[in-house]
Amino acid sequence: MLINNKHYRTIWEKDKFGDIVIIDQTLLPHKFKTITIKSLNQTADIIKNMNVRGAPLIGAAGAYGMCLALRENTSDKSINDAYNILLNTRPTAVNLRWALDKIKKEILNTSITQRLETAYKIARKICEDDIKICEKIGNHGLEIIKKIYNQNTKKTVNILTHCNAGWLATIDWGTATSPIYKAQKENIPIHIWVDETRPRNQGSNLTSYELKNQNVNHTVIVDNAGGHLMQNNHVDMCIVGTDRTSSSGDVTNKIGTYLKALAAKDNNIPFYVALPSTTIDWTIKDGLKETPIEERDPDEVNFIQGLDSSNKIQSIRLTPNGVKSSNYSFDTTPGRLITGLITERGTIDPSHDSLKKTFE
Amino acid sequence: MLINNKHYRTIWEKDKFGDIVIIDQTLLPHKFKTITIKSLNQTADIIKNMNVRGAPLIGAAGAYGMCLALRENTSDKSINDAYNILLNTRPTAVNLRWALDKIKKEILNTSITQRLETAYKIARKICEDDIKICEKIGNHGLEIIKKIYNQNTKKTVNILTHCNAGWLATIDWGTATSPIYKAQKENIPIHIWVDETRPRNQGSNLTSYELKNQNVNHTVIVDNAGGHLMQNNHVDMCIVGTDRTSSSGDVTNKIGTYLKALAAKDNNIPFYVALPSTTIDWTIKDGLKETPIEERDPDEVNFIQGLDSSNKIQSIRLTPNGVKSSNYSFDTTPGRLITGLITERGTIDPSHDSLKKTFE
Repeated sequence: MLINNKHYRTIWEKDKFGDIVIIDQTLLPHKFKTITIKSLNQTADIIKNMNVRGAPLIGAAGAYGMCLALRENTSDKSINDAYNILLNTRPTAVNLRWALDKIKKEILNTSITQRLETAYKIARKICEDDIKICEKIGNHGLEIIKKIYNQNTKKTVNILTHCNAGWLATIDWGTATSPIYKAQKENIPIHIWVDETRPRNQGSNLTSYELKNQNVNHTVIVDNAGGHLMQNNHVDMCIVGTDRTSSSGDVTNKIGTYLKALAAKDNNIPFYVALPSTTIDWTIKDGLKETPIEERDPDEVNFIQGLDSSNKIQSIRLTPNGVKSSNYSFDTTPGRLITGLITERGTIDPSHDSLKKTFE
Repeated sequence: MLINNKHYRTIWEKDKFGDIVIIDQTLLPHKFKTITIKSLNQTADIIKNMNVRGAPLIGAAGAYGMCLALRENTSDKSINDAYNILLNTRPTAVNLRWALDKIKKEILNTSITQRLETAYKIARKICEDDIKICEKIGNHGLEIIKKIYNQNTKKTVNILTHCNAGWLATIDWGTATSPIYKAQKENIPIHIWVDETRPRNQGSNLTSYELKNQNVNHTVIVDNAGGHLMQNNHVDMCIVGTDRTSSSGDVTNKIGTYLKALAAKDNNIPFYVALPSTTIDWTIKDGLKETPIEERDPDEVNFIQGLDSSNKIQSIRLTPNGVKSSNYSFDTTPGRLITGLITERGTIDPSHDSLKKTFE
């Protein structure tokens, strides 16, 4: 999608089989800068530090991390070590495991001399497939927006979204934002309520930045505001993303998603989750009981980053010095609160049967 | 209560019939500073700018604002003008209207020469009454905490609170925090989850500051986290405050309260609202439809204040430049989501009948 009217993806090869380039998402929305990644360890760092984030993008970055590891050493041991290093960077994102499993399996079955080339090919295909999947999610989600638009007697469709499940979280198009961009292309009038999404404000930092660059009408709100908006008919539908989807349709997504799903239910507002099937974890049935929830550094709660009066990015302390904070990064929304899962194969019920029928 | 081990109230007379002193709450938790108020207009400003905030404290500040107006001019016209100026500072807080109505009525019925003295006496009594009411709320709330403590086989009672309904929002003790301070005095082990409460972070700025100074065990969380904590048995009860309570028991409180009430209901966790009867608006029945919701400056969403690395309080920009934000300050939690209203006359059902029986 567009940044300053130029088309970008979130990750690309500098030269064929060469270094990898990403957009440094920790500096957005205030500065646009890219990072060139040259090694496995650097890849692990940029995932851990959230220079790249978002389930599909983490998967792609992980795959390219395996490529960079192979540039250093193509042995089985090196491949297994790289796999473990990368897998441990973000425990909740299931795409990362999916991408690493896929690339590891294929390169272990490839002769040593072909491994590097094969790895790059797989990483490239993961990116291309992700773009296709996101476009399909967009097309299926567009049908829902169209329906609401027609039911609404063609008034602006107000969509609430949480965190960033935008193109910056994927390779292009995004998951939750893909239906939005598709609706824009069809000239359906839309307005997006963007949850800022504390603690890391991926909503106001990234979703808002995306929508601004794409010229989509939107308003940033604090995470506390969505319930009030839903009570007062200012929201027609919610679309969020997911980091891990259980086999029965429970959705583990950025902390706070569950609260918005509760408010949507209480106000009869449809609540959709946009997801590539790569986020489905078939080993987990009860998302609430079984999905591990990542706890991140409490200083993400204690401090916040923004632009000071001299246009420098600065981090300031919010909490009283010495006070304890806690930082659970995800919560699980049970399927019973979800209207539908917008997947690359269509919009389906959040149930084991539907997921199985559609994907197994 | 205590700040740096010294007892304070939130508002006091510098000399009898003299200037008024408040704690500047916009600098907390990073700096402790008082402001001396000398005029009506200065009072209106400190209420508007939220140097004082919290429904009961705004009421007391409004009453003292009338006193300062009378120092300038004791005519009926001056009294009516002062009333209107003060009433317009914060439209949602019903205590402000209550306090202003009370003081205006009494001083208009007093001879010109006695008006100043009478006004100060009324303002003083509003403060003393508020302290007594808060203590009573504390005693009634303590009974609930004790019951949960005993049911819990005497494990630590985990209480979630939103915004600051602490002593800094009142004259002393607080409303939602009063049961907490009473439980501490009875040596009941408690732990408080403090919602930071964007956009102005009254939770991390004020509640956390209070609890720290009072030595109450607590953890600051982002507003998104409460649902996850409730799903995972980390919360035994919620206690929040209210800015305006409808005659049928709907509660209009800081934006985001409704989302926590939904999560509490979904997880069978008792959700209590602590309130002095002065927050009841008998003219409003359906809180959701009838209570006006204050919209404040969007820059409270766009910017945030904290301590920079050189220990200076600084405001930084969070949202991309030029992006639209919205800032509704309150939401309404319908009575059906509330377990009980902890009032100065006991804990009652959130219903018209209970409220009427108890207070009319």
